[in-house]
Amino acid sequence: MKVRLRNPDREVELAGGRRIHDVLGELRIDPDTVLVIRERELLTREDRVGDADVIEIRPVISGGARPIRMKCRRCKAPAIVELRRHNAAFCRGCFLRHVREQVKRAIEAYDMLGPADRVLVAVSGGKDSLALWDVLLDLRYRADGLYLGLGIGEYSSRSAEVVRSFARDRDAGLVEVDLARDYGFDIPTAGRRGSRSTCAVCGLSKRYVFNRAAREGGYDAVATGHNLDDEAATLLGNTLRWQTDYIARQFPLLEAEEGLVRKVKPLYRLSELETAAYAFLRGIDYVVEECPLVAGNTQLRYKEAMNRLESTSPGTKAQFFLGYLERAAPLFAEQDAAELVPCERCGQPTTGRFCAFCRAQAQILGERLEERAGGEELETRPDEVAGNLSEEVLPVEIYGATIR
Amino acid sequence: MKVRLRNPDREVELAGGRRIHDVLGELRIDPDTVLVIRERELLTREDRVGDADVIEIRPVISGGARPIRMKCRRCKAPAIVELRRHNAAFCRGCFLRHVREQVKRAIEAYDMLGPADRVLVAVSGGKDSLALWDVLLDLRYRADGLYLGLGIGEYSSRSAEVVRSFARDRDAGLVEVDLARDYGFDIPTAGRRGSRSTCAVCGLSKRYVFNRAAREGGYDAVATGHNLDDEAATLLGNTLRWQTDYIARQFPLLEAEEGLVRKVKPLYRLSELETAAYAFLRGIDYVVEECPLVAGNTQLRYKEAMNRLESTSPGTKAQFFLGYLERAAPLFAEQDAAELVPCERCGQPTTGRFCAFCRAQAQILGERLEERAGGEELETRPDEVAGNLSEEVLPVEIYGATIR
Repeated sequence: MKVRLRNPDREVELAGGRRIHDVLGELRIDPDTVLVIRERELLTREDRVGDADVIEIRPVISGGARPIRMKCRRCKAPAIVELRRHNAAFCRGCFLRHVREQVKRAIEAYDMLGPADRVLVAVSGGKDSLALWDVLLDLRYRADGLYLGLGIGEYSSRSAEVVRSFARDRDAGLVEVDLARDYGFDIPTAGRRGSRSTCAVCGLSKRYVFNRAAREGGYDAVATGHNLDDEAATLLGNTLRWQTDYIARQFPLLEAEEGLVRKVKPLYRLSELETAAYAFLRGIDYVVEECPLVAGNTQLRYKEAMNRLESTSPGTKAQFFLGYLERAAPLFAEQDAAELVPCERCGQPTTGRFCAFCRAQAQILGERLEERAGGEELETRPDEVAGNLSEEVLPVEIYGATIR
Repeated sequence: MKVRLRNPDREVELAGGRRIHDVLGELRIDPDTVLVIRERELLTREDRVGDADVIEIRPVISGGARPIRMKCRRCKAPAIVELRRHNAAFCRGCFLRHVREQVKRAIEAYDMLGPADRVLVAVSGGKDSLALWDVLLDLRYRADGLYLGLGIGEYSSRSAEVVRSFARDRDAGLVEVDLARDYGFDIPTAGRRGSRSTCAVCGLSKRYVFNRAAREGGYDAVATGHNLDDEAATLLGNTLRWQTDYIARQFPLLEAEEGLVRKVKPLYRLSELETAAYAFLRGIDYVVEECPLVAGNTQLRYKEAMNRLESTSPGTKAQFFLGYLERAAPLFAEQDAAELVPCERCGQPTTGRFCAFCRAQAQILGERLEERAGGEELETRPDEVAGNLSEEVLPVEIYGATIR
């Protein structure tokens, strides 16, 4: 039997004639973190595979992890996806409905989007952002995509293709920004030349471009594909450091402020397993590969820690993040937000003279920003220091210290 | 080469002629979580062992985990203990001094104990509580021990012996309470008969007996051996559930209130590695075995999660717990504490008519408490529900919902 594994892509030859459960056991893979696929079909833990089979084990996705005769919670048809945290299983149709319901519920709970709003969905080509765009279109929102070209070789070209093809298939609007073309640098260069880590400068650039493109295009909101796993891992990182100002801003809705468009995260109630199963079942072609520059990322270690806790206590992640929103967020809410002024170079909002993006860009390109009026002002502001310290953990979580 | 492993006790035969580092690698043991002992000597990661050697690998303890020529931070003598989180190593004498200094610092920071105070140290026979008693005696505090017999077979008899022998050697006062003799039940019976889990009823009984014995003996404070690892794991569990009232009470000092003696945790700045190395280097005979009833305890899973994060980022635990005390605790501080009244049966403080201990005891012994005045009052109070939910995580952390 041939088994195709991802991240990195590889194939192994294993004995067939046994259950998926045993195959995963031999590979030491947690069944709750993968989709097992044969042809276009999802397999459950109890399905048997033969010697001649070719299966794909695709990470970050559940999909059928329960005894074969499990029934759909809603319609009692055979289930194909199991959600341990909800202690429920669904057939294809009811699962897709479940995902849409969770998104609707999220949007309503925080009054994220109105029917007339123009929404810009930040799409990377991965499962989450494409699933989000798909659901929003299905729910009849006026949702265009925004693709930011990061210039990370083959990974970026493949992402761009996937996004363009999604937009074409659905006849949806797509805004494209290319870092190298429009701002003169790409992420690998920025990681080598600047003083920030690759993930930090990438996160900073995304926050900047998302906001700027939305304002320039006259959009009412930017929507990002952060899911429950992302939010729980980020909250864990912020909490382990008790960065109370970051904790306070980790909210599914950030209202528009002077120069900042509204930001919303309609997938915050759905796990990575759910968004991936959704994308697969909807036939969305997405980039399964992780960014090749992300290895060793702190965020991944927090996800791993949460996954371990989740595997023995299903529901831990949801309890942690949703519990924060319900019970703890008010305790963190009273933080002073610094006043925003336009960056003297690009006009985007910042708390200093120049925004963090312009400063990073100037450093990477070897340019000098106009001499500073206040001497060392920019280096010594405490919120700036805090921002630098944890950007690595918070790639696209919050506006950087200078544009909050 | 013979290797003796603990928890459970077993011996394996491995090839010698190599470094401890390689031996631990073969056994897949994180060097930061064990002490490696040959005769009465601590071995470092770089020490070589021969085929004829007999070594013991003792869990929950660092002790020499660094290249062989590491020097003591204070006196430059060869180091025998490395503390990665402090990026420091110490020789025997300076390490013992370091431990005492940390305890002094903890006591001063919270004004835990005055020189005239009579302190009752809750001792289980494990490394932490005996190390604490030892340090307090060394620092000339008027510290007696309190041993609570839980009736857990061989484990309890061995614990009692160890504690008695410690008290005899140091000519220190020891108060003994035996659950079966004094209250009519032991922990294994309570776990089988009552409605609470074994860990929950054990924690409840400890909190009750510690307080009662201290009051009856006229002590000013109860000191427990909770270390940094305990506190970080408990805080993680409380935070994952956002149990804000439990978080608020997770403090190294709980002041005396009506009917409750002061409670202090002078080891909160020291890791499990440090307390175990201290106990070993001081020649304290302690019970290495874990409680045989503790398997699968949630607290252990939180410790494991913290240990994984610590292994890639030394200092994570300290940052989490000490950072909580410094920066986040004030946010959680304003919780309404219910008023305390004497239990109608035993006179200890509670928020209802009967305290949780009396109710548990009556249930285990098949006795009936006097008919309740308020009908279902005791079952429906929300703080009671919260208490039940997390007692398993908080065996001796806080006063139960009914005796706060």
